[in-house]
Amino acid sequence: MATAAPVVALHYDGGTLRAIDQTQLPWHEVELELRGGDDVVAAIRRLSIRGAPLIGVAAAYGVALELARHPGSLDRACAALAGARPTAVNLRHAVERVRGAVLAAGVAGTTAAADVALAEARALHAEEEAASAAIAGHGADLLAGRRRILTHCNTGALAAPGRGTALAVIAELADRDQLDLVLAAESRPLLQGARLTVYELRRLGIDHALVVDGAAAGLIAAGEVDAVIVGCDRVAANGDVANKVGTYPHALAAAAAGIPFVVAGPCTTIDPACPSGAEIVVEQRDGDEVRAAGLWREEPLALTVPGTPCRNPAFDVTPAALVTALVTERGTAAPPTRESVSGLLGR
Amino acid sequence: MATAAPVVALHYDGGTLRAIDQTQLPWHEVELELRGGDDVVAAIRRLSIRGAPLIGVAAAYGVALELARHPGSLDRACAALAGARPTAVNLRHAVERVRGAVLAAGVAGTTAAADVALAEARALHAEEEAASAAIAGHGADLLAGRRRILTHCNTGALAAPGRGTALAVIAELADRDQLDLVLAAESRPLLQGARLTVYELRRLGIDHALVVDGAAAGLIAAGEVDAVIVGCDRVAANGDVANKVGTYPHALAAAAAGIPFVVAGPCTTIDPACPSGAEIVVEQRDGDEVRAAGLWREEPLALTVPGTPCRNPAFDVTPAALVTALVTERGTAAPPTRESVSGLLGR
Repeated sequence: MATAAPVVALHYDGGTLRAIDQTQLPWHEVELELRGGDDVVAAIRRLSIRGAPLIGVAAAYGVALELARHPGSLDRACAALAGARPTAVNLRHAVERVRGAVLAAGVAGTTAAADVALAEARALHAEEEAASAAIAGHGADLLAGRRRILTHCNTGALAAPGRGTALAVIAELADRDQLDLVLAAESRPLLQGARLTVYELRRLGIDHALVVDGAAAGLIAAGEVDAVIVGCDRVAANGDVANKVGTYPHALAAAAAGIPFVVAGPCTTIDPACPSGAEIVVEQRDGDEVRAAGLWREEPLALTVPGTPCRNPAFDVTPAALVTALVTERGTAAPPTRESVSGLLGR
Repeated sequence: MATAAPVVALHYDGGTLRAIDQTQLPWHEVELELRGGDDVVAAIRRLSIRGAPLIGVAAAYGVALELARHPGSLDRACAALAGARPTAVNLRHAVERVRGAVLAAGVAGTTAAADVALAEARALHAEEEAASAAIAGHGADLLAGRRRILTHCNTGALAAPGRGTALAVIAELADRDQLDLVLAAESRPLLQGARLTVYELRRLGIDHALVVDGAAAGLIAAGEVDAVIVGCDRVAANGDVANKVGTYPHALAAAAAGIPFVVAGPCTTIDPACPSGAEIVVEQRDGDEVRAAGLWREEPLALTVPGTPCRNPAFDVTPAALVTALVTERGTAAPPTRESVSGLLGR
């Protein structure tokens, strides 16, 4: 299958961070122009920018943007950006890294702070692009011969710099002519699979079929899937994985069917300070996301009785015991354990 | 919690079968007037009438309606009604039963055929109502002390005569003051949980929260659910269960968490001629159901790139090994096995 250039989800250009508004995809390709830290926080909050690695890079640029306007705002800007969403650890990593660079350069509070922050954000961005390429190679090596792949949520160029994480592995398998079909789970409530992964797969020219989230397990049991690969929002020190809600049941089904369940992400997603999945704070989002579909429209479609109480966790936790392999830019922990995960970070 | 009278999904009234159009709920309470077998087939096909036991009763009345207009149409009408949907065995049972009654009475082809068919349909309807009450009692006995229950799809008065199957158990637990909360999975693609179960729970005055299908497993793992109870579209002789797509991952999660996974349905749902789940034909429905939400509207909401290929199985199969108990009107098979299921049918 021929593959085309991936989308570019964000790029920094002369004092402005330009980002595709992912809430408008696949119908409208709208580019946002973000000029300050608050713009970036708002874009992350409303999921115009999403995907743990992409959020991190966007927040790093956000610090630089804010310092260009208010050189004395380092602590305030960093706190606001780091708090834009609670679950992804990349966000805090990225913001801390930029803050550390500014402090280390001794330019905090001066007009030079923005330049230092921008250089650090660019470095992070370039590193994440390189990580994506390395993840793609490691993952494709691991999944050689697994020609029908199921994935969840969106983990492509719209989720991480470069070609993404899990979807970069899929794109690499396609480049190697080792892929027949991708099953994309729609990923309710916000439908990142239906809206974003399908959009990317189509651009990449990769054969695909969309399924509702609940159908994945049965299709796995029926022998229609050779492997599952997903991204991750946070990996605990013991290898437990927080990822988009609906990931854990796919892992259960993969284990029951004896097919690999693979998690792909950069090492920045690993949180060595978090001992296990039990300590991961799962973001609880507004019930409107469940009560309706199409929050990207002026008039979303109501799916239930108005005002129905909802529980809307944005993530779930897959225990390390169900993960066949954690694929990072530094190699693969297969299976992920406290030792193998720590080994990745030590490399 | 106070409970109110359940909805009446269909009733026969002077030559007309009146049925709530379930595709319009919860927004519009529209009653369809079905006057012939073709009307009933069409209503079943477009899911205006749904739920395996309710489909069976509707089809039985459908035979009577058709014979009233065309006394010679027994075989043709029965074939059309039995073929309206492929997975539920109740449908074929019900149609065969009415056909058998007409033949046994020696009135086939005469104007008396419709009266015999109607009497048989009424008898079936009354039996299913009694079955619902018995299921409710057996299930509530089994789940005593399990105060937070997760359910899937719709299994209430809109799915089966009386108070339904799994939802009848839930209503009985509420009557006994043994229920704190029902988590209703929305049940994509057609959202019977969001549209119908929430509607019924609200009418019954039972506390509830709606969740996306993918969230159920994580909530179960997090200790927020004490038991899962679902209905069934077909039970194989070995206890394997076909039910609404998305059921199987809930069963996997319940097993992993060590909480009961209970299936409720009348014995008419058991197909002794079907040895195991591997032989159950799973209905594959149109991809439009996945590509959009709100097919009940003139302009459904597109969720993905137009024309995206989809896989849309309407059901999945939960292996008997994951089922804690099969609750029927004749008692409980716990766990369901070839022997215990056959024992239920022999009673």
